[in-house]
Amino acid sequence: MSPASKTTSAPRRGRPGYDQESVLQIAVGVFNRHGYDATSMGMLAEELGVSKSAIYHHVPSKGDLLRLALDEALVPLEAIGRQEQAMHGTAIERLEFILRSTIRVLIERQPYVTLLLRLRGNTEVERQALERRRAVDRKVTDLMIAAQAEGKVRTDVDPRTTTRLMFGMINSLVEWYKPNGPGSPEQLEENAIAMIVDGLRARA
Amino acid sequence: MSPASKTTSAPRRGRPGYDQESVLQIAVGVFNRHGYDATSMGMLAEELGVSKSAIYHHVPSKGDLLRLALDEALVPLEAIGRQEQAMHGTAIERLEFILRSTIRVLIERQPYVTLLLRLRGNTEVERQALERRRAVDRKVTDLMIAAQAEGKVRTDVDPRTTTRLMFGMINSLVEWYKPNGPGSPEQLEENAIAMIVDGLRARA
Repeated sequence: MSPASKTTSAPRRGRPGYDQESVLQIAVGVFNRHGYDATSMGMLAEELGVSKSAIYHHVPSKGDLLRLALDEALVPLEAIGRQEQAMHGTAIERLEFILRSTIRVLIERQPYVTLLLRLRGNTEVERQALERRRAVDRKVTDLMIAAQAEGKVRTDVDPRTTTRLMFGMINSLVEWYKPNGPGSPEQLEENAIAMIVDGLRARA
Repeated sequence: MSPASKTTSAPRRGRPGYDQESVLQIAVGVFNRHGYDATSMGMLAEELGVSKSAIYHHVPSKGDLLRLALDEALVPLEAIGRQEQAMHGTAIERLEFILRSTIRVLIERQPYVTLLLRLRGNTEVERQALERRRAVDRKVTDLMIAAQAEGKVRTDVDPRTTTRLMFGMINSLVEWYKPNGPGSPEQLEENAIAMIVDGLRARA
């Protein structure tokens, strides 16, 4: 809840007014620039353009802000696994659907996923988020094993290592993808899936 | 140069004595744990078990330590490109050699490469290191283009995006590879190369 929402749906009055989404957007930028540990409430106040004493009117606490910001990444990532195409079909089809959907969330929620991927696990909020992320990864490892049993994925690779390598590849895009750079999100998705499914080798 | 080397090759006497390698090993751990920006000379002193006033006898400056630690990653990474097998042969062979060698350096120099990959570029030392890293990446993009021209690499992927995806995959291992975990470095190397060259798909 933003402070404003207690009384009205319009942005809170004062200097300046923020709804929760704007606060989160600014906070995630500060966290990513300086690291969560190194970010102080004073730094957030400065970035929001409010006084250090007024900051608590705008944000609950640093930990709550982190939790809300991480949900912006985790909720859509977790939702992928509950979609029709992630639950039915062959393991290889479900795997490809999950990978494509993950790439889309990474692009759409880039700063929030960046925050998630850089967590060190120093606080309880961080550890809970990392556990939710691991649960998502485990589902993919299970699908990889099922796809090997189906005969659709090569059996000379280790499912756990391969899951990590795949996520390493996909997750890296939050560090280098530029929304306004050359190449559309669709091209990036196709390029990544082509590499994951068939690799570099030219085939006749 | 370690302070000790001015007078003797034996470790410096006192409480405790360090050669440069030990100082670097400890420093890179502190940098990776807290982030370079958030690490103070006081934190390094504590970790080395020396007083805050004595720290400058053991380490030159935070920036010099960073430069030395980054060289532990960059020097071997840059050396790969000067080896015989990186300079001669078909582009696809040279590419595979470079990828395999990079994986080995990442495993052998894991903490130093972790430091390199997490740099934010806030200081001149960091920016120089990032520029050296980019030069290494550019050589791989050039080889990718050459391998496409040779007909050995598929031409429906973008060489620059594909280089980034490949390095994303390979570089991720510094965040999750456990030297004493299951799976040998050789298995990891084979698994990664298999994925990069041929992808997931089972083939008859």
